[in-house]
Amino acid sequence: MFQNFEVATRPEPAVARVARLRDWMASEALDAVIVPRADRFQGEYVAPRDERLAWITGFTGSAGFAVIARDRAAVFTDGRYTVQVRAQTDPGTFDTVRWPETTLADWLRSAFPDGGRVGFDPWLHTLREMKPLDGLRGIALVPRGNGVDAIWTDRPAPPAGPVDVYPAELAGRTHAEKREAMAQALTGRAEAFVTTQPDAVCWLLNVRGGDIARTPIVQAMAVIRADATVDLVCEPAKVAPVLGHLGDAVRVVAPDRADALFRGLPRCGIDPATCPVALHGLLADPVEMADPTALAKARKTAAEIAATTAAHERDGAAMVRFLRWLDEERPSDLTEIGVVRVLEGFRRATNALRDIAFETIAGAGPNGAIVHYRVNEETDRPLGGDTLLLVDSGGQYLDGTTDVTRTMAIGTPPDGAADAFTRVLQGMIALSRTRFPAGVAGCHLDALARAPLWAEHRDYDHGTGHGVGVFLGVHEGPARISRASTVPLEPGMILSNEPGYYREGAWGIRIENLVVVAEAERPEGGDDRAMLRFRTLTWVPIDRRLVRAELLSPAERHWLDAYHADVLERIGPMVDGADLRWLRTACAPL
Amino acid sequence: MFQNFEVATRPEPAVARVARLRDWMASEALDAVIVPRADRFQGEYVAPRDERLAWITGFTGSAGFAVIARDRAAVFTDGRYTVQVRAQTDPGTFDTVRWPETTLADWLRSAFPDGGRVGFDPWLHTLREMKPLDGLRGIALVPRGNGVDAIWTDRPAPPAGPVDVYPAELAGRTHAEKREAMAQALTGRAEAFVTTQPDAVCWLLNVRGGDIARTPIVQAMAVIRADATVDLVCEPAKVAPVLGHLGDAVRVVAPDRADALFRGLPRCGIDPATCPVALHGLLADPVEMADPTALAKARKTAAEIAATTAAHERDGAAMVRFLRWLDEERPSDLTEIGVVRVLEGFRRATNALRDIAFETIAGAGPNGAIVHYRVNEETDRPLGGDTLLLVDSGGQYLDGTTDVTRTMAIGTPPDGAADAFTRVLQGMIALSRTRFPAGVAGCHLDALARAPLWAEHRDYDHGTGHGVGVFLGVHEGPARISRASTVPLEPGMILSNEPGYYREGAWGIRIENLVVVAEAERPEGGDDRAMLRFRTLTWVPIDRRLVRAELLSPAERHWLDAYHADVLERIGPMVDGADLRWLRTACAPL
Repeated sequence: MFQNFEVATRPEPAVARVARLRDWMASEALDAVIVPRADRFQGEYVAPRDERLAWITGFTGSAGFAVIARDRAAVFTDGRYTVQVRAQTDPGTFDTVRWPETTLADWLRSAFPDGGRVGFDPWLHTLREMKPLDGLRGIALVPRGNGVDAIWTDRPAPPAGPVDVYPAELAGRTHAEKREAMAQALTGRAEAFVTTQPDAVCWLLNVRGGDIARTPIVQAMAVIRADATVDLVCEPAKVAPVLGHLGDAVRVVAPDRADALFRGLPRCGIDPATCPVALHGLLADPVEMADPTALAKARKTAAEIAATTAAHERDGAAMVRFLRWLDEERPSDLTEIGVVRVLEGFRRATNALRDIAFETIAGAGPNGAIVHYRVNEETDRPLGGDTLLLVDSGGQYLDGTTDVTRTMAIGTPPDGAADAFTRVLQGMIALSRTRFPAGVAGCHLDALARAPLWAEHRDYDHGTGHGVGVFLGVHEGPARISRASTVPLEPGMILSNEPGYYREGAWGIRIENLVVVAEAERPEGGDDRAMLRFRTLTWVPIDRRLVRAELLSPAERHWLDAYHADVLERIGPMVDGADLRWLRTACAPL
Repeated sequence: MFQNFEVATRPEPAVARVARLRDWMASEALDAVIVPRADRFQGEYVAPRDERLAWITGFTGSAGFAVIARDRAAVFTDGRYTVQVRAQTDPGTFDTVRWPETTLADWLRSAFPDGGRVGFDPWLHTLREMKPLDGLRGIALVPRGNGVDAIWTDRPAPPAGPVDVYPAELAGRTHAEKREAMAQALTGRAEAFVTTQPDAVCWLLNVRGGDIARTPIVQAMAVIRADATVDLVCEPAKVAPVLGHLGDAVRVVAPDRADALFRGLPRCGIDPATCPVALHGLLADPVEMADPTALAKARKTAAEIAATTAAHERDGAAMVRFLRWLDEERPSDLTEIGVVRVLEGFRRATNALRDIAFETIAGAGPNGAIVHYRVNEETDRPLGGDTLLLVDSGGQYLDGTTDVTRTMAIGTPPDGAADAFTRVLQGMIALSRTRFPAGVAGCHLDALARAPLWAEHRDYDHGTGHGVGVFLGVHEGPARISRASTVPLEPGMILSNEPGYYREGAWGIRIENLVVVAEAERPEGGDDRAMLRFRTLTWVPIDRRLVRAELLSPAERHWLDAYHADVLERIGPMVDGADLRWLRTACAPL
């Protein structure tokens, strides 16, 4: 079992820890210290030893930071975590601050009207993050460390997961080809580029690691040179098994020699969105540019798309077995934890599961309305009857990363649930069906998924989609489908399409498929212009019992029937017996 | 008659003019000079004496610029004007360059690989426009003037239109209230703000002018001070009649004393998007900020919305008379010029028309596919039979500015026209019906108007909507509905909603209503969240003969029927006899 259900943190230990941190601050003559969630790689996922924010505050969300001053302290989180942060932190110790509505600069100005010395760890903050703090009147930002490392005596050891070769047949390009392309991207702009992003390094060199749960990455940094060679900053012991694969053009540099490497670099590109302040400070001649690996990684090759298609079919079969079991065999006392266990079991039974892609979200009734819900032993809830169950889950397979959400009726759907489900489905279908010209970004398409809810004076408070890797991060940049995402969509990008609707205290609905951007063939009567569209990658039935067919347009109904026919055609041959019988019914036309 | 149909320019005169400009360049030791379309006020509309671009090149479009070097010259225009610029300019003299795909910096780099001296007029270019030319290797930008002023001997005199008071009852706020609000907006940021935008000045001081055809503005600049007083830079003779209205808090400064005024200003805000380079150079302590009048002007008051509603009803009645005439009385030899004349006649017959809002676009058959088509004596085309007629027109009334496009079947609609019309209508209805949360900008909604066309692999190559003033510019910032517009929509903003579809060489379709952003009431079952929506301001029947009702959803059909019922209710009491009979039929349910 990958997932566990322990309560990860308690608010209470923070009290004594914060007291020790304040002693450390006094010894360093600091008035405050910033504790972020990030590690020095600035990826989304961190190892247990880098869970400083959770250790000092109790808050375990995936985004946020704390500021601890001598007489006050605050945890900053975005709207997704407002409820969670209050539940996980000690109210006598921490204020909770909604960010970015209130910025760190605002808080510091108000906390230190007469100025002060604020410590921070320059390896744990990016240039972009620290820029708004430039020139705060009277407030000195002191790169003295994060404080937590100094007082966390039983801090876990650094991860030492093995590094494996990622087959070039699945990647579609050798790492020599990728290094060459990245070197080309530097032409005329820089002599080198340094990235700290572990998923960028894994993609570039066709390797995968085992340093972080749920995401097969290795903690490493890379310097890409204009001559297409790479300096790979990583523990030599980890990469020893893949030295033959890496070859002579990739030089392994031990982390304790990294500073000297960075100091000696010629005109070197960095991405201000991800480059740590400390790294920037080591470079003699830094130049700001977008990380060239980000777009190249996002544009999946034909081989990657073929590979992830196989992974999605395999995962779809596991989901079908789970949904059939849920419908026909679920015990009357089934709880959310039971759901998570059984679903992981079906994925494991494929014999191809390397990990789950993230902690499964299984929210029954009101828990379904908590967008980032993770069940634990205290919150576990029996499904009961006449409710909705929202299950958002995915698998990491060597050939692909999956992420699928389905919402199922348990018994008779509650009042209004089928209506809301149908509106969410219409939004999901609108994105699935649309064509769009080149240059269009996620910010332009987000409204298509919301319009059916907007028409009813409803909405959901999360983005519509995120990028997804191939046996890499289930969240991957640079493109998203959200109001803020201006990166044009390009063929090969894999994104989620996941509108939702949440009735607090009652139930939650989300329907999520992964899709890949593809060139659209020109139909009879269409303009002579290039257009793109999304091709669906997820094949799992959508609960027809929650669809109010009379609300659908003929085109929407046609899409759903065609989708289900496709699911049956692809997944049917992979299941049999009761599963196949159930699948046929689930995929019948409306 | 406001509109005329003369061919405005010819390509030939440019040859001799360019030769004289090159003599001037030689005398100034310049290798090239930039000739923009802008005047020193940087508004969208210019007086005849500022039509330097048309005079030197022949090109009369509303956006573009020329660069004339010793041995080559180029006119830069965007994609809307690609055809027009080729037709209007001498190919032996001017290359035509598609901008912004090729920038001025690109062109200069390629024209002057070994460097050169490029003259420009610092009053005719904004900071934002010139910024990309900073640091072009070896190319010196010399503020020596635009050259045209030195050689254009019969240049028209400056406009001297009278300035009138704009009634505070129509504006909804006195100019004292507006000055106070603008002064508030400067608090803590600047001691003053200088705007060169004539429509901003007119809005701020509740005046209108007669300097520019089609747009009732006065050529003036204004310095807004933190004490809520204003320095109005304008010919004293023009404003003499409104001195009593302006009062003591508005000091009139003659243009020849403006430089001294600007030089003496304390910390002064400017908007880099509109501030001329020369003006910026005069300020001792400039600070960049968004022009505070832009958003304030865009958020119309209740009084302005009531006023413009009356103007739209009046204009709608004129349009109804025109459409009835077109249907029932059009002569068999009617041409596009005839359409323009008759339509202007119906608007004049309201006895309230101050001007047309722009040159009427009347495009029959293939001319309808030219998005910025203006008929003249050479292009004039008989309507003939079995075609489409696109008419985009508007009026300037004291109480409002209108802008409406309708496309009518003349005889039997051509193949595919009704299908395309229905898709365009669906997009226009989608925007008309949608609700959206605060924070949403035009870039987020643009796709809703395109989705019905996108589904058919079709699109249109212009924005979906622009801001509109009240007895001011028919194009007004800062919000638009286009892929590039990130200004959040706010209650009171008036915008056009005008999707289209164009089949080159055959016909064009556009349907345009003006809409105003309003708070949406929360319906039964809606979320407890604030949302906005558009309220329609244009009441003119949409040609039902071009609607394929079977393609509409029940909700779309309901919108169209309800719209037509509203048109009949508002316009019916304003017309009678044959007009009323025609209106009843035109507004019948589908």
